[in-house]
Amino acid sequence: MAREMERTVPAGVWPMDERAAVVVQLGPGGPAVVPPRQPFLRADDVGVLRGDGVFEHFLVRAGQPRHLDEHLARLARSAVMTDLVVPGEAAWRAAVQAAIGAWTGPEEWAVRLVSTRGPEDGGPPTSYVHGHELDPAVLRHRRQGLAVVTVERGPVLGAAAAGTPWLLLGAKTLSYAVNMAVKRWALAQGADDAIFVGADGEVFEAGTSAVVAAFGRRLVSPPPSIGILDSITVARLAPAAVAAGWAVERRRFHVADLFAADGLWLSSSLRFARVHTLDGKALPLAPAHEELTTLANAS
Amino acid sequence: MAREMERTVPAGVWPMDERAAVVVQLGPGGPAVVPPRQPFLRADDVGVLRGDGVFEHFLVRAGQPRHLDEHLARLARSAVMTDLVVPGEAAWRAAVQAAIGAWTGPEEWAVRLVSTRGPEDGGPPTSYVHGHELDPAVLRHRRQGLAVVTVERGPVLGAAAAGTPWLLLGAKTLSYAVNMAVKRWALAQGADDAIFVGADGEVFEAGTSAVVAAFGRRLVSPPPSIGILDSITVARLAPAAVAAGWAVERRRFHVADLFAADGLWLSSSLRFARVHTLDGKALPLAPAHEELTTLANAS
Repeated sequence: MAREMERTVPAGVWPMDERAAVVVQLGPGGPAVVPPRQPFLRADDVGVLRGDGVFEHFLVRAGQPRHLDEHLARLARSAVMTDLVVPGEAAWRAAVQAAIGAWTGPEEWAVRLVSTRGPEDGGPPTSYVHGHELDPAVLRHRRQGLAVVTVERGPVLGAAAAGTPWLLLGAKTLSYAVNMAVKRWALAQGADDAIFVGADGEVFEAGTSAVVAAFGRRLVSPPPSIGILDSITVARLAPAAVAAGWAVERRRFHVADLFAADGLWLSSSLRFARVHTLDGKALPLAPAHEELTTLANAS
Repeated sequence: MAREMERTVPAGVWPMDERAAVVVQLGPGGPAVVPPRQPFLRADDVGVLRGDGVFEHFLVRAGQPRHLDEHLARLARSAVMTDLVVPGEAAWRAAVQAAIGAWTGPEEWAVRLVSTRGPEDGGPPTSYVHGHELDPAVLRHRRQGLAVVTVERGPVLGAAAAGTPWLLLGAKTLSYAVNMAVKRWALAQGADDAIFVGADGEVFEAGTSAVVAAFGRRLVSPPPSIGILDSITVARLAPAAVAAGWAVERRRFHVADLFAADGLWLSSSLRFARVHTLDGKALPLAPAHEELTTLANAS
């Protein structure tokens, strides 16, 4: 997720330590564990040639995949939006279990489900599970919080997303070059992450996480209907927060509102992290930070 | 390019004929021809996980790569925009020559240059040349022309592209999911291709080609400064057209202008194709169609 945050090393230099990894291929014969660092995809797979595929990414803790039902459901929705045939839930579940069975790394790690449209000249889709250790930046962000900059995405996300299916708004595709570029941009500014905003300052989402703000005991996050990814962690946090006495709203708001918030977080499947600095201005530590972090991790 | 146009086959059904293909890997030891349909990329290559890389795509005719200098220059520009270290020109030229030497298919074919950021946990970038036969749709479009629909891209492209480097406007990245989706959308509407336009109808570009319109002896195409890809074929056509007595302009215009044009074409490195129908309305056959097609193919 935040992998590229660690990748600002000079050309030709990279970590030589090999971290734990597992790859499970989905196929007609069932899941097959394959060597994780050997060639796997064809050079003509449109997953790479076109970023043409869908994915999900989530934690595994103590052998349990987190929010697997929700991730399978969202993968299926992304597949519909991209007109892609992906394996069924049972095949994914079996592959995730195979990955968990083969895992030899730390107790907390992450898994991706990946489906591409396959080789360009026709051929079966390529589907696999990729398990890997957490980026150290993920752990650091949980502990220390984030400095975040806002960057303009353009008003397209504010448009009627439902009327422009060709833009794949809300689909979690493999075409994440901009999502990665905006993180590199944030790092270059001395920040940790970036929030996409509209030309008018409307708050959308970060490159790989959702925006959550607290105003007193009111928790606010932008609605997926504006064309952002439907966050699973926000969807899970909401009822838990309501049960704990919060009011929860999905509504549109602007950057200026965030400076008046009692707390601001970026929420993804890998981390719920406090934003301590926004566009260079320090934000207060929300009294509810510990409470919300606990709710987010438990929900 | 137009590959996915042929891919609306039912799930599990695909062409069983194996067309000619060649893959050449770039590495410290020089170019290496590798089996084209065997696994090549790692499952954790961010080229697939994130669409994080750059590419070029062009014709080879009678053993000669077309506009290779320009494609190498644009690849280098895309690499700068994406903060990616790619092989130097000499390495690419050697790899293209190796691909040409190993090619056993038809006299006219296409080559891609591909560079990804490599494995996610650090590692060398993945760079290769992929040679393949032309999609039959490319040949059909050259012969028969195109029915095209306009689709809204959102006003982002009209914004000051230079001020938003994180959006990678003008970079030719591997994140082409939307470029592919818009072609599937066009096919579903009974058309062959689609032109992205702004909310106000400003004409941008098609998913994988540039827009060229003729008004009398005036040839007009939108300027790259609005955030579209800097088309190599348009850049090559322009001086050839001027030499043939045309006035050539790079300027902003709207869909409504196209219905008043004497001719409309979509120009890519694989094909210069006439648009015979735009949003369901028949367009006139430009008197200059043959002249411009000849200029485009010779320039």
